[in-house]
Amino acid sequence: MKSYRKELSFNLPGRRGFVNITPQVEQCLSESGVQEGLVLVNAMHITASVFINDDEPGLHQDYERWLEELAPHEPISRYKHNLTGEDNGDAHLKRQVMGREVVVAATKGALDFGPWEQIFYGEFDGGRRKRVLVKIIGE
Amino acid sequence: MKSYRKELSFNLPGRRGFVNITPQVEQCLSESGVQEGLVLVNAMHITASVFINDDEPGLHQDYERWLEELAPHEPISRYKHNLTGEDNGDAHLKRQVMGREVVVAATKGALDFGPWEQIFYGEFDGGRRKRVLVKIIGE
Amino acid sequence: MKSYRKELSFNLPGRRGFVNITPQVEQCLSESGVQEGLVLVNAMHITASVFINDDEPGLHQDYERWLEELAPHEPISRYKHNLTGEDNGDAHLKRQVMGREVVVAATKGALDFGPWEQIFYGEFDGGRRKRVLVKIIGE
Repeated sequence: MKSYRKELSFNLPGRRGFVNITPQVEQCLSESGVQEGLVLVNAMHITASVFINDDEPGLHQDYERWLEELAPHEPISRYKHNLTGEDNGDAHLKRQVMGREVVVAATKGALDFGPWEQIFYGEFDGGRRKRVLVKIIGE
Repeated sequence: MKSYRKELSFNLPGRRGFVNITPQVEQCLSESGVQEGLVLVNAMHITASVFINDDEPGLHQDYERWLEELAPHEPISRYKHNLTGEDNGDAHLKRQVMGREVVVAATKGALDFGPWEQIFYGEFDGGRRKRVLVKIIGE
Repeated sequence: MKSYRKELSFNLPGRRGFVNITPQVEQCLSESGVQEGLVLVNAMHITASVFINDDEPGLHQDYERWLEELAPHEPISRYKHNLTGEDNGDAHLKRQVMGREVVVAATKGALDFGPWEQIFYGEFDGGRRKRVLVKIIGE
């Protein structure tokens, strides 16, 4: 069994944003030499998500508006978590809706995807360096 | 290490619906010959889900009504994604709540489940052929 | 390839609550002898979650309030599932928001976590014994 590990780094200037990380994950799979196996991609921070959906800017605006409806950033006082001095209570909730991680099949050395599947990093508390873990096991 | 791959196909007549796919996944595990390992089951489409919950029709009606409250299908103009000519913006949001994939343990050649766990395909934009991937690795 | 399986048991006195299970999962990984691999941790019950977030009591109160807003426990008659005689329809919905399972990388024999990641059992229908499955594969 082979295993492979890599960290990807992000530093989004705004509070929130989505980044298509499919090419980086494909590069990891290529470096791993794994032909058949599983690819785990997870946010290493608890105010960020990794998820799979469509690379369509209108949809990303829909996600942004919808997540703000479900868990508004303001008023900051809405969240007991923010009594710790943080202002990112909303980000911990948004991340649960979008998810921490994806597990993708590797088949014949490629990400085994349907026609529109793309992997995104979802940032909900940006403005600083944050990381994503890629772990691959297989043969 | 053994690996196994199979696609399951669905074509639900309505826009939305839930299908219990546990027997098909059990069949895949049996075909794979894997005794100990991990079973990944994921929607290959970004307007559908694979999730684990109860096979109880009342609960499925509850999911249907709740997801419509969280992300209503209409008005179509509610979603910027629908400016592309699609009418499935809501389906991309509903799928995030219910999830893309499940990972299930295989133990002694069987799905290692609690008493009520069943695997479902969740369709949020039906009326056409769509696929689910089953990937199994182990020994 | 090594594989390891263990069940963890919980019996929370109240209807809802969160328990940090990171030490138990670390113990499992240590017992497994796996250095490089994947760790699956999943609720075996469909009214409970396993998720990764922050061990901060204010945040857990935020989750509790927010999940009650998204899927209120009462009135019981709100959920068709409760026509079966159950009163836990809300718990099946809350569990979908928080998720069934997490998959964590094992690297050099440790859970490969970012700075604040902790694993929680989320109970939404307590007052009885329930179980979590830990399955580890790797080398």
